[in-house]
Amino acid sequence: MAILILITVITLQFLFIRSQQHHHPLDPLNPKEISQIQHIITTSHFASLRNLTFHFVDLDEPDKKDVLQWLSSHKQNQSFPYRRAKVVIRGGAQTQEIILDLKNGAIMSEHGYKGDGYPPLTLTELLQAARLPFQSLQFKDLVTSRGLNVSEITCFPFTIGWFGESIAKRAVRLSCFYRQGTTNVFSRPIEGLTILVDIESMKISKFIDKGKVPLPGAEGTDFQSSSENPNPVPCDSNTKRSFVINGNNVKWKNWRFHVGFNARAGVIISTALIFDAVKNKWRSVLYRGHVSETFVPYMDPSSEWYYRTFLDVGEFGFGRSAVTLVPLTDCPNNAAYMDGYMAGGDGLPQQVPKAICIFERYTGDIAWRHTEVGIPGKVITSGEPEVNLVVRMVATVGNYDYILDWEFKQSGSIKAVVGLSGVLETKAATYTNADQIKEETFGPLVASNRIGNNHDHFITYYLDLDIDGEDNSFVKANLRAKKAKSSPRKSYWRVIRKTLKTEDEARLKIGMDASELLVVNPNKKTKLGNHVSYRLMTGQPAVSLLMDDDFPQIRASYTKYQVWVTAYNKSQRWAAGFYADRSTGKDGLAIWSRRHVNESIVNKDIAMWYTVGFHHSPCQEDFPVMATLSSGFELRPANFFERNPILNN
Amino acid sequence: MAILILITVITLQFLFIRSQQHHHPLDPLNPKEISQIQHIITTSHFASLRNLTFHFVDLDEPDKKDVLQWLSSHKQNQSFPYRRAKVVIRGGAQTQEIILDLKNGAIMSEHGYKGDGYPPLTLTELLQAARLPFQSLQFKDLVTSRGLNVSEITCFPFTIGWFGESIAKRAVRLSCFYRQGTTNVFSRPIEGLTILVDIESMKISKFIDKGKVPLPGAEGTDFQSSSENPNPVPCDSNTKRSFVINGNNVKWKNWRFHVGFNARAGVIISTALIFDAVKNKWRSVLYRGHVSETFVPYMDPSSEWYYRTFLDVGEFGFGRSAVTLVPLTDCPNNAAYMDGYMAGGDGLPQQVPKAICIFERYTGDIAWRHTEVGIPGKVITSGEPEVNLVVRMVATVGNYDYILDWEFKQSGSIKAVVGLSGVLETKAATYTNADQIKEETFGPLVASNRIGNNHDHFITYYLDLDIDGEDNSFVKANLRAKKAKSSPRKSYWRVIRKTLKTEDEARLKIGMDASELLVVNPNKKTKLGNHVSYRLMTGQPAVSLLMDDDFPQIRASYTKYQVWVTAYNKSQRWAAGFYADRSTGKDGLAIWSRRHVNESIVNKDIAMWYTVGFHHSPCQEDFPVMATLSSGFELRPANFFERNPILNN
Repeated sequence: MAILILITVITLQFLFIRSQQHHHPLDPLNPKEISQIQHIITTSHFASLRNLTFHFVDLDEPDKKDVLQWLSSHKQNQSFPYRRAKVVIRGGAQTQEIILDLKNGAIMSEHGYKGDGYPPLTLTELLQAARLPFQSLQFKDLVTSRGLNVSEITCFPFTIGWFGESIAKRAVRLSCFYRQGTTNVFSRPIEGLTILVDIESMKISKFIDKGKVPLPGAEGTDFQSSSENPNPVPCDSNTKRSFVINGNNVKWKNWRFHVGFNARAGVIISTALIFDAVKNKWRSVLYRGHVSETFVPYMDPSSEWYYRTFLDVGEFGFGRSAVTLVPLTDCPNNAAYMDGYMAGGDGLPQQVPKAICIFERYTGDIAWRHTEVGIPGKVITSGEPEVNLVVRMVATVGNYDYILDWEFKQSGSIKAVVGLSGVLETKAATYTNADQIKEETFGPLVASNRIGNNHDHFITYYLDLDIDGEDNSFVKANLRAKKAKSSPRKSYWRVIRKTLKTEDEARLKIGMDASELLVVNPNKKTKLGNHVSYRLMTGQPAVSLLMDDDFPQIRASYTKYQVWVTAYNKSQRWAAGFYADRSTGKDGLAIWSRRHVNESIVNKDIAMWYTVGFHHSPCQEDFPVMATLSSGFELRPANFFERNPILNN
Repeated sequence: MAILILITVITLQFLFIRSQQHHHPLDPLNPKEISQIQHIITTSHFASLRNLTFHFVDLDEPDKKDVLQWLSSHKQNQSFPYRRAKVVIRGGAQTQEIILDLKNGAIMSEHGYKGDGYPPLTLTELLQAARLPFQSLQFKDLVTSRGLNVSEITCFPFTIGWFGESIAKRAVRLSCFYRQGTTNVFSRPIEGLTILVDIESMKISKFIDKGKVPLPGAEGTDFQSSSENPNPVPCDSNTKRSFVINGNNVKWKNWRFHVGFNARAGVIISTALIFDAVKNKWRSVLYRGHVSETFVPYMDPSSEWYYRTFLDVGEFGFGRSAVTLVPLTDCPNNAAYMDGYMAGGDGLPQQVPKAICIFERYTGDIAWRHTEVGIPGKVITSGEPEVNLVVRMVATVGNYDYILDWEFKQSGSIKAVVGLSGVLETKAATYTNADQIKEETFGPLVASNRIGNNHDHFITYYLDLDIDGEDNSFVKANLRAKKAKSSPRKSYWRVIRKTLKTEDEARLKIGMDASELLVVNPNKKTKLGNHVSYRLMTGQPAVSLLMDDDFPQIRASYTKYQVWVTAYNKSQRWAAGFYADRSTGKDGLAIWSRRHVNESIVNKDIAMWYTVGFHHSPCQEDFPVMATLSSGFELRPANFFERNPILNN
């Protein structure tokens, strides 16, 4: 779940002076462009709309073929032929989709959106909603009757999902927390009090008072480390970096890629190429990779909690929740930083300073090694310590901190890891000891008067892999036991490769099934005759356990499978649909795929969707702050190279 | 598979001067003790045995209750009341088990072993076997007829498993490799030629010549990195260490544990305690943890390969295969090192210098963090970079290098990771392109004239967890969907905890089943009333795919499940049985457990066995050396502490 980070964001009121020259057609919008967009819209016929607000301002992505052509044409010194923006505004209670041409400053197209769901609430709306109770006498009465001091209260707006309502208006529910004696705001929930806010009118529509529940105490809630000496920093910040950042382009060892940022996905990796020393050329791996959606359903069906079934990316935005990274805490002292830019609700540019860090990680691991004793009179040990390049951002979506790493290895692997830290969303309860619990609590007691409600996190990655070219196939290589003939052995396993032909076939649950999942280029072979491919290496599997007909599951139905592969479609990037706030499940990955169930994905431009899942039944160690829990996946070359590429760097 | 590392081992001919004072009753045997044992045996009635060889010389582990009593009695300044050794010798073609009292230098007991299987071959035997062909004219003829120069050949002895023979003698098969033009000995197999050696007579019993197969070339086989500048070392080796090593005892932050070493398991972690700042006391987590066995079956039933179904720990020994770690390549420059000691085939002490390294790993990760924006006018970011303590050794078992890490975290977690690197065992073949392959090859073409045969690695850990005391239970907490009542929600999941009552119930495959596996102390609760426990966090599952009636599978039948829990029994430590060489599956984890299928494991001293599995169908990137592939597990506190312990360090 997720809220306001507007205080970490700096609104750029001045006209930012920055070169209009773009280094890459997928460069995110810069502050000058965001200002330009704001100016065009607010001086157009849209200016007359009541309550004009900017909900989404992003680069309108150029066509892939144009991008690839430009990148391969050595025209990088010329600017890309066109530059467009996609903007979603609301005004007069309508959603409008607008495409702008930034070269000539004109509106190219506009379209009123009439479907289900809404764009994310703006930070301004969230902040306004959070402040409403403090203008209300009824609220003052309710909290005073609980013996609380209004000035010590913070209310957070929660999105409310969809539960079959035929008309779903823009609305949030506020939950309030008592700050007295703690900086850990989420640790003292004022349970039993929920405030419904209608966003369109920006008015409280209802106070729901379920009666007093004991307010959990402040003791032991602060999470400042007691350590007086922070962990020593062993590394010299003057260490020579092996990477070069040019605009948003990064070059390191055998890798070259582009780092983007937008309000919705946060960090975006594009056009990742790896240098093949044998072929003496740069070869494509990943055209575009980013977090597409994050589904966080809580497992408490009670009236105050049932609706907490957040789509963090679509409802709030990982970029909008990006924090300014703190050197030494969030990134080592050899890190370089990039700022992030986006539009505020007023359309003006905002900056997230140090939104992304890039650093070489001296992992302490061994990249490869061998000790050879077979040569008479000699012991030869060869090897290299592992040094990887990490691109990191952190999205703090209310209580949870998502640490998003993309890690590039000289061996050719790309690893994506998401680490979960931050603070539990707890529910106040009368219990001070687990032995007192006689009823179902929907989560264990994690601290005195606090239930840590059970919940899941499903972080879905969009991965437009282009393995040595755009046209790829998806292969499941099954390891199957076979009876051995004419051998003292009775069995062995062999690999049965199966090209999955349709989107329907390519929807997978990965459990005990022994198989390798490969994205293969069927048009390219190594000199040795093997099909060029990358392998998806996964971790402990977790899929959604909700029933299929449950409303949150209908909205995030793609979470029943870890892997989906779809034919590439530029407009398909957001797994729970673009308009996720109050969505009804009529858009998104499962819907697109169902529509194209028999569509061939063989030797085509394909996109892979992989969901990293966590089931979280909390424990006391998660309080007052959670030690990071990580999971992720690795894309590892498999016959992409003629030989281990690490030896050539 | 595994062979000789004798050249890395230094035989200590002198009487090593070292204090007899032991710091811990589980301290490994020191060189003086090993010499003492050798002296006792070689001056006893065993001296008259023909071909007296020492196959196993280790501490005879004191009873757990004695160790725990001593450790808790503040008698650490006095020496432990007794000190015994367990020795397995062979002489006169018989296996003898001997227990020695090292305090009075006497043999306490002796026992002739008559069962199936043998102790590991000694390094001397392996080396003698490897040299036999070079004294043979027939061998000279065979290789000369292949146009090869005898002086450029290295032969490696492979253990041969068991395939239903009623009499299984001690024997190995030699495979030979051509070193010309390469330091990568395994890259040029002389396929088609196998030499059978009878170990007891130390004679070649048979040459098997299947005819010539093209010898793979030397080109591109060397794995020296082309990088002229090794990766820069960013860290100052003078960084103050936060850990203290006293003998074999290590203390770091909130952890205290003992690091042992023996010829079989390699590194052994014992009596790991964690400091609980709330309770102000040290609490037990892991009494003993080490690799118990490693099963590596190749998937080629042909006559030259079918027998390659190695039990690396029981047949060769991870300690015997331990290499001298290379600073900067194998361990960062802030590492401390420990030497390893063991007995040679002659019983004399041998040293593996720098067999273990211990270092603080600055992971580049974030141990915990939170950005709080809910306090008006403030943005508070708190957090800490993750610094862990790693204990590492590397066992190079012939071609494969196993990197064995135990990682301790301030959050209370212990992580065990095994990394696989080294060189593939390839099979020479006529193919220079995959398109030429028309028959089944039992693995893909990974380099010209080389098939990378499919195989598995199952690394089984013995984990005697003592969670806050010896008596523990094993709980499977199942996450199960439930229909929601009187709620807009239709479903949620809840946790159904089930104490697994018998060894039979506790044998698990972990697949898509959503559950948490917990070792619980049913006698201890937190102040908050939760049962004290640690959770086993696993990675991508892999179990053996061989058929149950296949001989290698009969010998390693425990590999069909990832998790076993057994009642503690001091003598049960080696999953494939103690006498693994040519074993017939009559001893080992599956056998013990089947015998005690209904034995209660509730509120008892229990041991957990976890198998980290890899299926490996090689690819070209695995040649000429493999980039490290890692997997492992984490033991993570779950209501062990009252709150996140990381805040107290």
